[in-house]
Amino acid sequence: MEHRLNRFSNYLKENHIDVAFLNSKENVFYLTGFQTDPHERLLGLLVFPEADPIAVLPGMEAGQIRDAGWTYDVIGYADHENPWTMMDDKMKQQGVPQPKTVGFEKQVLSYGRSESLLALFDEVSVIDVEGQLNEMRLVKDEQEISIMREAAELADFGVKVGTEALKEGITEMEVLATIEYELKKKGVAEMSFSTMVLFGEKSGQPHGNPGDRKLEAGDFVLFDLGVVWKGYTSDITRTFAFMSISDEQKSIYEKVHEAIEASLSISKPGTRIGDLDQTARDIITDAGYGELFPHRIGHGLGINVHEFPSMSHLNDGVLKEGMTYTIEPGIYDPAVGGVRLEDDVLVTADGYETLTKTPKELRIIE
Amino acid sequence: MEHRLNRFSNYLKENHIDVAFLNSKENVFYLTGFQTDPHERLLGLLVFPEADPIAVLPGMEAGQIRDAGWTYDVIGYADHENPWTMMDDKMKQQGVPQPKTVGFEKQVLSYGRSESLLALFDEVSVIDVEGQLNEMRLVKDEQEISIMREAAELADFGVKVGTEALKEGITEMEVLATIEYELKKKGVAEMSFSTMVLFGEKSGQPHGNPGDRKLEAGDFVLFDLGVVWKGYTSDITRTFAFMSISDEQKSIYEKVHEAIEASLSISKPGTRIGDLDQTARDIITDAGYGELFPHRIGHGLGINVHEFPSMSHLNDGVLKEGMTYTIEPGIYDPAVGGVRLEDDVLVTADGYETLTKTPKELRIIE
Repeated sequence: MEHRLNRFSNYLKENHIDVAFLNSKENVFYLTGFQTDPHERLLGLLVFPEADPIAVLPGMEAGQIRDAGWTYDVIGYADHENPWTMMDDKMKQQGVPQPKTVGFEKQVLSYGRSESLLALFDEVSVIDVEGQLNEMRLVKDEQEISIMREAAELADFGVKVGTEALKEGITEMEVLATIEYELKKKGVAEMSFSTMVLFGEKSGQPHGNPGDRKLEAGDFVLFDLGVVWKGYTSDITRTFAFMSISDEQKSIYEKVHEAIEASLSISKPGTRIGDLDQTARDIITDAGYGELFPHRIGHGLGINVHEFPSMSHLNDGVLKEGMTYTIEPGIYDPAVGGVRLEDDVLVTADGYETLTKTPKELRIIE
Repeated sequence: MEHRLNRFSNYLKENHIDVAFLNSKENVFYLTGFQTDPHERLLGLLVFPEADPIAVLPGMEAGQIRDAGWTYDVIGYADHENPWTMMDDKMKQQGVPQPKTVGFEKQVLSYGRSESLLALFDEVSVIDVEGQLNEMRLVKDEQEISIMREAAELADFGVKVGTEALKEGITEMEVLATIEYELKKKGVAEMSFSTMVLFGEKSGQPHGNPGDRKLEAGDFVLFDLGVVWKGYTSDITRTFAFMSISDEQKSIYEKVHEAIEASLSISKPGTRIGDLDQTARDIITDAGYGELFPHRIGHGLGINVHEFPSMSHLNDGVLKEGMTYTIEPGIYDPAVGGVRLEDDVLVTADGYETLTKTPKELRIIE
């Protein structure tokens, strides 16, 4: 965390930003190691180019940020206290000079909170510092990778539970409930997004909602799920055939499988990010399914289940060792059903590793 | 919805607010009947004192807001389009005059989005309109009450499942997983907050986290849970004794029970809201447990699981027919364990009704 704080402080110094106020729980976690959800209460971090940082949080959590290893100042406020005034006092007490430029996360901080923050200072200019945090979070360190490996393993386990629960007549919601039940028993407190279990024609909806649809022979079964684990996320999709598969279903499955393997195979340091989407898209388009693949190939993965980089064909950035993201091509035929296959990918020194390990070869569950 | 939109338009007219932009999914749902979670994408509603309102949302959801009954203009934007420019064009096209005052939800709208919104207009003054929506949402109509009744019934069901799962040696997480499994099978897609199942000394922590604690004879078992159902929430707490109860545990239970009944009994139109907290607090304090009841008596309940009114002893507002809120006194003894009892309450014409129906008499589960 020390290293991350120093890097962010240096960025402030280089960019002549006199104080930054970070308000997102993800960025506070990234810089402090303290994981919390303050709901409507204020949680924040004041970071300076030279002076030590200051954490601001509900008083009842002050002990917990210490337990997480935070050694700097903490403003722990009670519900009847005004944290902004306390921040003002603390900065004056520490002799923080009147800033000319204030940075914060423009897409996170509410207008109301920006008013409270800016009222602490004389006339200042405002700058967005979220891009810098997004940039820092792109490349994961060993500890982060080790947690993401565990998160991905739990996602694999969720898919395994789901496949084992399949039987004729069971509903999507029953299978979904079974998966989450077994994950909760393993200590998963939170899924990284609403779990998707879709049968038959419903697998043909990229944003379908699980419901009462009963499983029938000949259905595709699509699982899309992930967990939040020690502050990091996973996200896997697998599609299976139940009892039998038609030629048309098989053709769709094989194209998606070919597309994900092609996109994975060029995952290594130096590859243009947009090429991962383009490679998969070309395969799907050449097979005549281009119109049925309406979304980008994937998204960055880490503290947020959707973070940078955006894995779209327009992204001219290049892959670096330590980046983590999903690759998830799909073909959605409203009549036949849909197939999506998704892995969590880590860029290694000379290639890639999939953190999710469930096989992607076509499997017909009997 | 029409009635709500008219009322909000009239408020804008009376307060000389030329345009309001609502960005919270809860307020958009309240005024349109359309329930969605746009995540990072923009969802909003432009409301005017005279002109018809305009909804702004991702294009792929445009059909769904129509299905929900929205008959006014819809701006459905694609990911590569700029919804702010489209809003500007639409307002020009409809001849909306240049505003002098713009309203939005100051605690919801991000600073970045406020910049995009304000850039559409010449110099304007900014006003917070969230208070008006909070005010309107205080009193529920018949349709809302009918949904909240269903949500509360599902919460009762969750407690029933939890009590039936209790046996020596089972862990908190196993019981929690069973409750959510059975609720999911009933079609509950989302809990209204992280379900709490706490055993023994852990019930003595007002914000404890369920974990591996195994159930033992003589433990208190505290359940705190609720569901999101058709856009509305429920929230119930019950505490049970497992196998046996000590005199000290019994004394705590009976005081909390007495406190909730006293607070419920004065729930009727015209009662000062703060008196509900004070009445329960006096009973608990007189019994010598005042220090062990560290939170307000409850919170408003509706689309949000925490909304207005705040049921604190400082609230000088008065109850009105149709208001819905929780009453949840508790005593938390770190050694003996804690007891909290919580009902969802509806103010009726001449008193109250608890929407949650699970009995509150002391029950020792064998």
